[in-house]
Amino acid sequence: MGLDLELVGQRSAPMSHSYGWKDCVLYALGVGAKLDELDFLDDARGPKVLPTFAVVPSFVAMGGIVARLGANPMMIVHGEQTIRLHRAIPPAGTFVTVAEVKGIHDKGKGALVVVEAKTEDDHGQPVFDNVFSIFVRGAGGFGGDRGPEAAPVEPPAGAAPDFEITEATAPEQAALYRLSGDYNPLHINPGLAKMAGFDRPILHGLCTYGFAGRAVLRAACGGDPARLRSFAARFSAPVFPGDTLTTRGWKLADGRYAVQVAVAGKTVLSNGVAEVV
Amino acid sequence: MGLDLELVGQRSAPMSHSYGWKDCVLYALGVGAKLDELDFLDDARGPKVLPTFAVVPSFVAMGGIVARLGANPMMIVHGEQTIRLHRAIPPAGTFVTVAEVKGIHDKGKGALVVVEAKTEDDHGQPVFDNVFSIFVRGAGGFGGDRGPEAAPVEPPAGAAPDFEITEATAPEQAALYRLSGDYNPLHINPGLAKMAGFDRPILHGLCTYGFAGRAVLRAACGGDPARLRSFAARFSAPVFPGDTLTTRGWKLADGRYAVQVAVAGKTVLSNGVAEVV
Repeated sequence: MGLDLELVGQRSAPMSHSYGWKDCVLYALGVGAKLDELDFLDDARGPKVLPTFAVVPSFVAMGGIVARLGANPMMIVHGEQTIRLHRAIPPAGTFVTVAEVKGIHDKGKGALVVVEAKTEDDHGQPVFDNVFSIFVRGAGGFGGDRGPEAAPVEPPAGAAPDFEITEATAPEQAALYRLSGDYNPLHINPGLAKMAGFDRPILHGLCTYGFAGRAVLRAACGGDPARLRSFAARFSAPVFPGDTLTTRGWKLADGRYAVQVAVAGKTVLSNGVAEVV
Repeated sequence: MGLDLELVGQRSAPMSHSYGWKDCVLYALGVGAKLDELDFLDDARGPKVLPTFAVVPSFVAMGGIVARLGANPMMIVHGEQTIRLHRAIPPAGTFVTVAEVKGIHDKGKGALVVVEAKTEDDHGQPVFDNVFSIFVRGAGGFGGDRGPEAAPVEPPAGAAPDFEITEATAPEQAALYRLSGDYNPLHINPGLAKMAGFDRPILHGLCTYGFAGRAVLRAACGGDPARLRSFAARFSAPVFPGDTLTTRGWKLADGRYAVQVAVAGKTVLSNGVAEVV
């Protein structure tokens, strides 16, 4: 089924999203926050908010415009994600997001839909931007252009990582993560996951992204959310709840970090790059 | 500090509480629901609602009247809990609860405050009742009566349990459970836990209660929430997040189940009794 290519350049209505500290803690636990990260779990400490929480308040705006594509939800997987943070995210707020379809690229086996979502606070001040790149399997071959190829961000050849953090996800990780707003049944329903070609429900790409973001925060930002300015990554292989994630980071010559996540030696998150101040 | 004994017989204002499926799933994960209990995790299956979720919609009404006691929150621990279910709990609703202080008993080392909370749906039909028995350490010795002593519910002497289920709690179990509405910092703040006389934050008694209720549901009710009519238990020793809980049940001559929970051989939940139909 063809996607509605007329959506390119179209914007969502401004979508309002209110959240509070419980949403921030729920998200933190959903991406694996541990008891020694109490700044992100105890409301009495703010709480601090994980930078990758930026994907949550913008999700409905992105999802609304993606729904207008006419794609089968079971054929949608997350391709890439970028967040740009203009400041640390407060533990409560009412934000407004406008999402815009920036491109629908023909990747042959599927279509890559690029949605930029800009989020402002209730004074119209920018808080963060997201770029969601959504891969719609089976929706390619429509004669469109392949779109720009992002220059891969590779670790320095042969160099040992500057940090490496290994954490297990829980078998219930997707069941918990989805409470933060991504209710795609691909992540909870075994029958639908099989129909989509997976042995069992897969973990949300953005959950792996959250684990990776926590690792960057801890290892490269001293735990201070205000020090992470952007984080981009590609989801290169499915992850299953219960898998153990190893996040590695390499400091690049320009001060950025190249980031990868592997499961049992296989890279599942690639092309990662984090800007740290 | 003396408690306000004039509260006995007083009722809270009717307190309204609305919830939806996410609250039910969050609670289920908070009390350790596993991926093979998808009925309680997947919204597309209802979801079914754990019977012990009954403590959640009534918690604010109970907490409000307990706050009027004038007790130091750091000195409050949960003593006993009873739920009586009039029907299976729906996955969304707006319920009204009235809480009444039934007694303030002088246990010497502390005071036992018994609060009954009756919850109705928006048609005035009863859904469930709770009896919260709250122990206020250091608030005894005021010359009051000790109150009725509940007849202990003991397993048949020497009999092997009819079921036994062992599950680990997560180190983050209390951080997750508290998102269901019990924000007492005793369960998250290491400094306050020490002031209260514990090495580190303790697990909510009602979290242990939820693990036990899940075990009863699975082993004695075939997973059907409508079959559990009541569940009463006493919290007899502190549990710490990360502890492994072993729930045992013995079918009694009258068809009820005696229930106990142990950690490393020590009983932490005693006097448990579940009515199953």
